[in-house]
Amino acid sequence: MMEEPGSIGLRRFPMPKVGRGAALVRMIGSGLCGTDKHMFHGETLHPGGQESTFPLIPGHENLAYIEELGEKDNDEDGRWFDSNGAPLKEGDRVVPACDVNCGECYNCRNFYGWCWCENVFGYGTTVSCRNPPHLFGGWAEYMYIVPKVHMFKVPGGLPDNVAVLAEPMAVAYGSFSRAMNPYWLVKEGAGPGDTVVIQGSGPLGLSHAAMAKMVGAGRVVVSGAPRERLDLAGKMGADVTIDISKFERPEERVNEVRRLTGGRGAALVVECVGLPAAVSEGLDMVSMAGTYLTVGNYIDTGAVGINPQKQILSRSLRIIGVNGMPYQAYSRALSLMEIHWKRLGLDKFVTHSFRIDEAERALETASSLKSLKVLVSPG
Amino acid sequence: MMEEPGSIGLRRFPMPKVGRGAALVRMIGSGLCGTDKHMFHGETLHPGGQESTFPLIPGHENLAYIEELGEKDNDEDGRWFDSNGAPLKEGDRVVPACDVNCGECYNCRNFYGWCWCENVFGYGTTVSCRNPPHLFGGWAEYMYIVPKVHMFKVPGGLPDNVAVLAEPMAVAYGSFSRAMNPYWLVKEGAGPGDTVVIQGSGPLGLSHAAMAKMVGAGRVVVSGAPRERLDLAGKMGADVTIDISKFERPEERVNEVRRLTGGRGAALVVECVGLPAAVSEGLDMVSMAGTYLTVGNYIDTGAVGINPQKQILSRSLRIIGVNGMPYQAYSRALSLMEIHWKRLGLDKFVTHSFRIDEAERALETASSLKSLKVLVSPG
Amino acid sequence: MMEEPGSIGLRRFPMPKVGRGAALVRMIGSGLCGTDKHMFHGETLHPGGQESTFPLIPGHENLAYIEELGEKDNDEDGRWFDSNGAPLKEGDRVVPACDVNCGECYNCRNFYGWCWCENVFGYGTTVSCRNPPHLFGGWAEYMYIVPKVHMFKVPGGLPDNVAVLAEPMAVAYGSFSRAMNPYWLVKEGAGPGDTVVIQGSGPLGLSHAAMAKMVGAGRVVVSGAPRERLDLAGKMGADVTIDISKFERPEERVNEVRRLTGGRGAALVVECVGLPAAVSEGLDMVSMAGTYLTVGNYIDTGAVGINPQKQILSRSLRIIGVNGMPYQAYSRALSLMEIHWKRLGLDKFVTHSFRIDEAERALETASSLKSLKVLVSPG
Amino acid sequence: MMEEPGSIGLRRFPMPKVGRGAALVRMIGSGLCGTDKHMFHGETLHPGGQESTFPLIPGHENLAYIEELGEKDNDEDGRWFDSNGAPLKEGDRVVPACDVNCGECYNCRNFYGWCWCENVFGYGTTVSCRNPPHLFGGWAEYMYIVPKVHMFKVPGGLPDNVAVLAEPMAVAYGSFSRAMNPYWLVKEGAGPGDTVVIQGSGPLGLSHAAMAKMVGAGRVVVSGAPRERLDLAGKMGADVTIDISKFERPEERVNEVRRLTGGRGAALVVECVGLPAAVSEGLDMVSMAGTYLTVGNYIDTGAVGINPQKQILSRSLRIIGVNGMPYQAYSRALSLMEIHWKRLGLDKFVTHSFRIDEAERALETASSLKSLKVLVSPG
Repeated sequence: MMEEPGSIGLRRFPMPKVGRGAALVRMIGSGLCGTDKHMFHGETLHPGGQESTFPLIPGHENLAYIEELGEKDNDEDGRWFDSNGAPLKEGDRVVPACDVNCGECYNCRNFYGWCWCENVFGYGTTVSCRNPPHLFGGWAEYMYIVPKVHMFKVPGGLPDNVAVLAEPMAVAYGSFSRAMNPYWLVKEGAGPGDTVVIQGSGPLGLSHAAMAKMVGAGRVVVSGAPRERLDLAGKMGADVTIDISKFERPEERVNEVRRLTGGRGAALVVECVGLPAAVSEGLDMVSMAGTYLTVGNYIDTGAVGINPQKQILSRSLRIIGVNGMPYQAYSRALSLMEIHWKRLGLDKFVTHSFRIDEAERALETASSLKSLKVLVSPG
Repeated sequence: MMEEPGSIGLRRFPMPKVGRGAALVRMIGSGLCGTDKHMFHGETLHPGGQESTFPLIPGHENLAYIEELGEKDNDEDGRWFDSNGAPLKEGDRVVPACDVNCGECYNCRNFYGWCWCENVFGYGTTVSCRNPPHLFGGWAEYMYIVPKVHMFKVPGGLPDNVAVLAEPMAVAYGSFSRAMNPYWLVKEGAGPGDTVVIQGSGPLGLSHAAMAKMVGAGRVVVSGAPRERLDLAGKMGADVTIDISKFERPEERVNEVRRLTGGRGAALVVECVGLPAAVSEGLDMVSMAGTYLTVGNYIDTGAVGINPQKQILSRSLRIIGVNGMPYQAYSRALSLMEIHWKRLGLDKFVTHSFRIDEAERALETASSLKSLKVLVSPG
Repeated sequence: MMEEPGSIGLRRFPMPKVGRGAALVRMIGSGLCGTDKHMFHGETLHPGGQESTFPLIPGHENLAYIEELGEKDNDEDGRWFDSNGAPLKEGDRVVPACDVNCGECYNCRNFYGWCWCENVFGYGTTVSCRNPPHLFGGWAEYMYIVPKVHMFKVPGGLPDNVAVLAEPMAVAYGSFSRAMNPYWLVKEGAGPGDTVVIQGSGPLGLSHAAMAKMVGAGRVVVSGAPRERLDLAGKMGADVTIDISKFERPEERVNEVRRLTGGRGAALVVECVGLPAAVSEGLDMVSMAGTYLTVGNYIDTGAVGINPQKQILSRSLRIIGVNGMPYQAYSRALSLMEIHWKRLGLDKFVTHSFRIDEAERALETASSLKSLKVLVSPG
Repeated sequence: MMEEPGSIGLRRFPMPKVGRGAALVRMIGSGLCGTDKHMFHGETLHPGGQESTFPLIPGHENLAYIEELGEKDNDEDGRWFDSNGAPLKEGDRVVPACDVNCGECYNCRNFYGWCWCENVFGYGTTVSCRNPPHLFGGWAEYMYIVPKVHMFKVPGGLPDNVAVLAEPMAVAYGSFSRAMNPYWLVKEGAGPGDTVVIQGSGPLGLSHAAMAKMVGAGRVVVSGAPRERLDLAGKMGADVTIDISKFERPEERVNEVRRLTGGRGAALVVECVGLPAAVSEGLDMVSMAGTYLTVGNYIDTGAVGINPQKQILSRSLRIIGVNGMPYQAYSRALSLMEIHWKRLGLDKFVTHSFRIDEAERALETASSLKSLKVLVSPG
């Protein structure tokens, strides 16, 4: 539990009684995300304007067993289904979506499934654990599932340390869903076989590299550091890596991308860095009428100078901001991982695992560049 | 003829002999465009990297009668067709496309119809009149049509002063073709009935305002000045105008758009101003997951600060650069104008008309804010 | 109330108490639809496999005033919003959607907003009035709104007899949302300015004709009979009508469409007839790579012979079945009607109006070809 | 050379002189296609209404070396480029597109790259070898390349027996380009990870099975016979096969597809059989709002009964006819095969190879079900 930014500790809550339409899950593990680090450092303003409210239990990339399913109101026969239509029962291994949409606000009613709900209830990020039933985060033994949480049944063959990637992979799926070319015969956006450049070799970057391969990309180029992460990238979908400790200046990296693409640039470039300057650099890597996604600039760290004529209009680019993901992406990510995880070695993605009582060390490790995805689990 | 930037004069060329696949047209008139003014002021670098080569005959928004059709190579029966499949004969009134695509380069083969050809031959903009047959611009009595120029037959009921708008209206059609929502049930991009804001009340802005209505927009808001142009906008599709002499600061205009849209912003905002600062202002007018087009920043006038998190990612925006137009847009623009010109009063769009020998006055008038579209014709 | 097919009568129910999340509306009027006639004749099997359960209160094209709003569970401040985000209060004029989606089944979770819910609750069509609170149909003084019903606030300027068209116009909007061309520069599907042919001049056909105009179609051709309906069509969007009493054989009608389109056929043809044979006829009216929608074949009346090579493959057609509509289409239809109703004379669409106690006469009138839309209201 | 249907023999033509913009290629090999068999049996009417004109040299799935490149008219520096922008020189290994589009007719100007040209010049299918330079088919030592033929450079690492699949793989790419889901979050059409069913296990079917995997499909199901071909299918992308000698009745095969998909049907079903009855069977295999492609019904063999309500409307299906392919698909197919050929074992696709003088045996072998793709080469 985070009492407040910078202060983390263990606490015991009473076992909750499961209400109508609600459920209780027993945690297998929870992936540590950049947002957790931001909250720990007091950067608690989320894109929709929501603020984290402390104390809270972190953990929004969750994998769990269903412990108890409450009675259902709406469904006459009282059965539970996951959000892809599969029946659910106690004992099933599930990924619960981290964001609960109200389903009634303007955004819920006009942007199918995206987590842009005006009343979003964010497990592990915005909702405090002050009030009962308290258990609103994944760094815990149990988590309380309020009604309307989407739960996704995990395919049997998927190991825990791959299934726990569902949330970041869903983000990546959502990204590509907005970027891919709706009319393949014209080279706008990216289609099957096209080159995709990922800026950034952290967990977000490598999720996008692997997902790029899963949705049909051709060559995947990852630009980042250090060597260890680039080596991992090479196993998980990256065909080429650009080591920014060697290609130090933005122009060098832009030139390298142009060299790799016959001078034309990449059909799709995805920013997974979190720095405004990456946007200006990345735009220059995009090919004529190609697409640029900014996914990593999730926290406001300022502005960057963009030349509309040179960097956007003259090459007819598309720039797309991706804020979070749609809930449908969880089940698609799970089924794509089921097909591709062995080929892409996704079981190497989680590099470290800690018990809940080691949460502070988990945060430290996740902040070092030697780790990729760090897990927190009841142990 | 422009001898060089700033110097303009009349010159007589010999009547050309029409080669195989070529044609000769007798000019009705040619609309004056911002690019003509730029060339006159020595700003001669076009987005694809092409330079204007002087001396040249300006005029790329052309309307003409077919004077002579050369023999055809490819088509066994020797007949001519316009680019929408209609048969062509001498005497027909046509709009010849201003850009000739080579059809063989990477861009021609991958971006269907767009004028991004690597060997583009630009009537009235890049091609000099130094070499025979010289007549490569519309401020003339005759124009020589090289093979591969798309010519579009003008519907009978369209007056000359509306038909001559085909080129700017084709630009606007091309803009909307990239911005409209491919999946109407989700509010990404703009669909029928959505609010569209146009930044700018010059000829480009008003072409976009009118075209917005023709392709199904709901409320159209035009932000610009002076009053005279806004009044014209009000006749040609604008439901609301924002007078920037009253709403002087960008924040005031952004607030006005928000006020008009229940606080949500507009689904689509189109920049037709030509200043980088307009991009930053316009982004703040866009609604959640809406679209921003930059069309007016055709000439490089520098950079602007953009905050990727606040202005792009947090609202999941799309920004699209539109460079020129696809040739197919001419015939669509002509048939849309045929349907809608009376309703939208497009016969008021051309406000002034000059003879070729008054070209300098035409340029002056076009530079004043009292005119909208200025015509140059053989008289 | 329909006791059973063929038997209709008045009945008085107790005024219901409004539960949490529910509401009560006071009926203004209810449009009579082909489905009502089908039910009266005992054709009670709906496309999803649902059966009408008698006794039931017909009426699913409803317009009403909010009489009472129940307390809200989910929304902390207890306020009600319509499905486009507008605040709702008692006295507001609203269109309640006729289908209630459970929001939990596979179809609800994978087909955003479409009425294909596996547990759909259909006002006036499938739900019996046997059990309290009974009032589940629009041919009544009051209607009970269960939680999850989407209600749409009617724009102030829209007359009642136009606003009551929201449901059929939403069907038409849904149809076009599936048919329109996502990439305008290639002539697949229909885009702004394209010719649209409507087969059928009943209420469904004329809703589609008017909506075609509202979403940007070019020339609209309506094929049907009798003369009176074609005359009405001519006022509401049809530029050309084909009188099937004159063009008696399918080939004649196909030839007429080809003649009107320079031999090419129409980019989009919409079946609003309800007979399988219309599909074979209509396919031959479609242009190369164009689109055919079947909307009217809502009730199973058998098969038709189709030649896959000649009628589908050789011209690369798309055929799309449209079953019902998405709820989002209500608000879009309302705002499009607000913009266009005067221009299209939509206040002539309702030709007859009856009191509830005249329901049988209303059904008879709706079955005659002299009426277009017939209204049933508390009077 | 086919003198006429049923009669095939060798003939020697003079070596042609290469004209401006033309080229000469030395054949490596030519794949044998169903169309070749149809022509041999006198079924010579192609979908656009073109007839084969005898005598002709068959062979339209061609792979060759550039022997001589003629001078270029249009390109000032006289260089040749392939249709993806790569420079071409003598000795390069290329795939020449089999259809030459005139570039001027309505279809060329409105359907980017598709082989629906009204004046199409079809190598090996419609163009006779009667007139000089005669060499208009791939069952030859040399082939004459007229101007406007798209030639595609083959990636270095691709073996000849894979590269020669470019044409059928381009057909498959074109098919999927029309079927894939433009908005992934709604299950319309097929997206990454979705189940795809292929009806037919001949060369067309297996090209589609392999291409499905290359563009991101999930599980691929192939329905066909005999065992040998299904075994090959299993190596080239099919995860499941349905042996029609065991599942003999259409209902059994429909049930098997439903069983494999949790009762829902497949998001995409592709007809590669060539029989109208397959369409009715296949429609019943499609999931709600899914897509059905008919690709195999290339030759007219009659009609089939379709129930519009049950088979199209009630499940909101899309049916799409695919006639031939767009030229852009060649380069995409080549680059996708470069990435995936080893993984999918595409070097097993060609099962038999014959010399030109064994053409009749090649046709016999291709007609047997023991072969998959049969090659004809100069030997």
